[in-house]
Amino acid sequence: MIPHDSIVALATPSGAGAIAVIRISGQDAITIGNSVFKSIKNKDLTTQKTHTLHLGHIMDASKTLDEVLVSIFKGPNSYTGENTIEISCHGSPYIQQQIIQLLLRKGCRMADPGEFTLRAFLNGKLDLSQAEAVADLISSDNEASHQIAMQQMRGGFSNEIAKLREELLNFASLIELELDFAEEDVEFADRTQFHELLYRIEFVLKRLIDSFAVGNVIKNGIPVAIVGEPNVGKSTLLNALLNEERAIVSEIAGTTRDTIEDELVIGGIGFRFIDTAGIRETEDVVESIGIRKTFEKIEQAQVVLYLFDSLKFKVQSSEYIIEIEKIKNQFPLKPLVVVINKIDLLSENEVLNIRKQFETLNVKLETISAKENIGVENLKNQLLSFVNTGALRNNETIITNTRHYDSLLKALDEIMKVKFGLETNLSSDLMALDIKEALYQFGTITGQVSNDELLGNIFANFCIGK
Amino acid sequence: MIPHDSIVALATPSGAGAIAVIRISGQDAITIGNSVFKSIKNKDLTTQKTHTLHLGHIMDASKTLDEVLVSIFKGPNSYTGENTIEISCHGSPYIQQQIIQLLLRKGCRMADPGEFTLRAFLNGKLDLSQAEAVADLISSDNEASHQIAMQQMRGGFSNEIAKLREELLNFASLIELELDFAEEDVEFADRTQFHELLYRIEFVLKRLIDSFAVGNVIKNGIPVAIVGEPNVGKSTLLNALLNEERAIVSEIAGTTRDTIEDELVIGGIGFRFIDTAGIRETEDVVESIGIRKTFEKIEQAQVVLYLFDSLKFKVQSSEYIIEIEKIKNQFPLKPLVVVINKIDLLSENEVLNIRKQFETLNVKLETISAKENIGVENLKNQLLSFVNTGALRNNETIITNTRHYDSLLKALDEIMKVKFGLETNLSSDLMALDIKEALYQFGTITGQVSNDELLGNIFANFCIGK
Repeated sequence: MIPHDSIVALATPSGAGAIAVIRISGQDAITIGNSVFKSIKNKDLTTQKTHTLHLGHIMDASKTLDEVLVSIFKGPNSYTGENTIEISCHGSPYIQQQIIQLLLRKGCRMADPGEFTLRAFLNGKLDLSQAEAVADLISSDNEASHQIAMQQMRGGFSNEIAKLREELLNFASLIELELDFAEEDVEFADRTQFHELLYRIEFVLKRLIDSFAVGNVIKNGIPVAIVGEPNVGKSTLLNALLNEERAIVSEIAGTTRDTIEDELVIGGIGFRFIDTAGIRETEDVVESIGIRKTFEKIEQAQVVLYLFDSLKFKVQSSEYIIEIEKIKNQFPLKPLVVVINKIDLLSENEVLNIRKQFETLNVKLETISAKENIGVENLKNQLLSFVNTGALRNNETIITNTRHYDSLLKALDEIMKVKFGLETNLSSDLMALDIKEALYQFGTITGQVSNDELLGNIFANFCIGK
Repeated sequence: MIPHDSIVALATPSGAGAIAVIRISGQDAITIGNSVFKSIKNKDLTTQKTHTLHLGHIMDASKTLDEVLVSIFKGPNSYTGENTIEISCHGSPYIQQQIIQLLLRKGCRMADPGEFTLRAFLNGKLDLSQAEAVADLISSDNEASHQIAMQQMRGGFSNEIAKLREELLNFASLIELELDFAEEDVEFADRTQFHELLYRIEFVLKRLIDSFAVGNVIKNGIPVAIVGEPNVGKSTLLNALLNEERAIVSEIAGTTRDTIEDELVIGGIGFRFIDTAGIRETEDVVESIGIRKTFEKIEQAQVVLYLFDSLKFKVQSSEYIIEIEKIKNQFPLKPLVVVINKIDLLSENEVLNIRKQFETLNVKLETISAKENIGVENLKNQLLSFVNTGALRNNETIITNTRHYDSLLKALDEIMKVKFGLETNLSSDLMALDIKEALYQFGTITGQVSNDELLGNIFANFCIGK
């Protein structure tokens, strides 16, 4: 089942940089590496200790391809669990290609996406949910999703599942035993204890399943619809919400990413801002299409920001209030924050006056000046208050993976059947079947149960070299 | 002069990948690394041997940022010559940022472009021309420029210069000695030997200066102007010239670069193909501007390919021949290759007939079918024959750097003055001044003579992290 050929791939991002790392894993990794490496101290790589670094040149026959550092990891003390070497070469695409081509000629094979991590899983270095967390970790771009992926990679989630599975397995074997002694009508499995376990499992599964709502949103970013007329200051507001965070990012040259203007990280949580046109009442056909689209976008959002200009509010407050009422009626359960911008242009009394008009309206109100950075911090806190970060703060296990969510739902379904069986004195043999099914679902999460198709689906989403 | 603070930078290309490497160099690099690292085996990094690897976590107080591998290099046994650690973390831009920010808080400073290599130079690990070769190596994208950069990085060029400088220095000190004993009219420096040395230096300098013509062209690609009407098959020809090479590149996923369609590598040498409109005689003002532009482009090129369609040639051969004559007259010294495309559409006799018409014309003729891949190999060899690859094949030192070229020209100038002085019995004190100037120019190449401005200019062109 576990392949023994040696795979090679570029492990660092493609393109030019100071250095690049080429990774080889497999039984013959060190021997193959040694066959193209000339140590400056004439060392033989195959006799070197694990976790050591060696300076030398990659040689294609008599031609020097590069001066490199080679790291040696001897299986099982490596990421994959196999013999592994990493060649740290100069970061020129030409050199990377030349070295990889040479290694292919020396008997390596190009690694498939995620194949190093797949091997780590097959060699028992990681369970399946930990392996999946590796990809999540690499793609995480804010504190919350990073923290969840890191916890999952370190086995927090797997441990919880594995512990329950073990307890359940214990009962399952006792019940199987009863089947062997069916004619004697004995009960090896203490029904009270079993009932207590099922309750506990149900509780944990429900908590994990519930956490998916938070986890999913954290992984993909919280969608926030901004309703407001053009020129009301949407982009100034986004910039104000962004402020320091972007400054820090661009300070570190070489790590700046392409910014997607309307994806912001606030307090470590990703928010996706969705621009909408507004919902002013109209008889114009074109505009009424605009209104329908606005409603569709609000539908998808988790939070609605209704933004308007304080000066305009002064002259047409009733129009705005009608619009706000309309949104509230249409989406009674959706959190709505009314944001009044440009309050730096009003007197204190005028601001108080506006506040008063909203007192009876039962909406959250934030008065800000995006330009002068007034009230922006409050708005941030308001947005964060809609995210249930309690679980995050308490370091509780949070599910972000749809596959896990699915397995947990199925496991819960089976557990409920077992519980019902227990309560209705179902025969042991039928109950044993339901327990088996629950155990199976637990097993798919951690990979104790897996098949090639499942593994193929999971690792196809990895990058090459991981 | 040598700074002692610790610098940090991302050493791998920015963006997401399987792994990323963050490099720290400086007296306190290992101590700083240790302060944020929690080994899985509770190791203290500061007590570990050089060239060892350690698995653990990067901790920001109690928060785990990532699971990483740390490489330890103790000065002077490191790239920079200082204590150095490399943190191999997961390739997420978020994690890279978090770790670099943490290290900045712990007392590191962001490295300037090329600062690691600058420190290697200041610590005597590399001379200046070797340091410059590092940047050339990273940017080299074909075999020839790679080979030259590699040779220079390994000190081939510096050694040659340093040896001459030493011999010259020896004579300089003998002549200086003569100045001390000026009244006694003694000659410590054997004038015949000195003359012989100057001849040798002159010979070497001239060879190196001459090599710049090849070196510069190899570094930047050989410009080839393609003259031909639209639809004559230019892009099919470029694709045919490219054929296998591109296939190999795209096989290695993750290493494919953006292809600039008209930059090809043939036989390890880079060629830049410059498309031109053609030079058909005309009275049209717009077209005559086109002709002037074509001539300008031919001017810049090192080789001209005149491409036409065999079927069209059959019906209007005289027009084509007039054009070819025109180019020959305008650029009598520029290599011109006439390429007749689509010969698969002609009979053997017709091809022979065309060849005959060119016999008296004294141009290189290639008959090809770009589409059927006929004659393309011959054309490649023809193009390569214009590049003086002899020096390359013989592994001779080739100059590619304008700064070196400039210093060598100045050194040659001074050497010629010394030689003239020697031949005209110039007084030792005046001769000593010229020798000093020549020594100075030699020294600027290897960096024995340098200043902050020069170093600033050189290293500003490096990438960050190198």
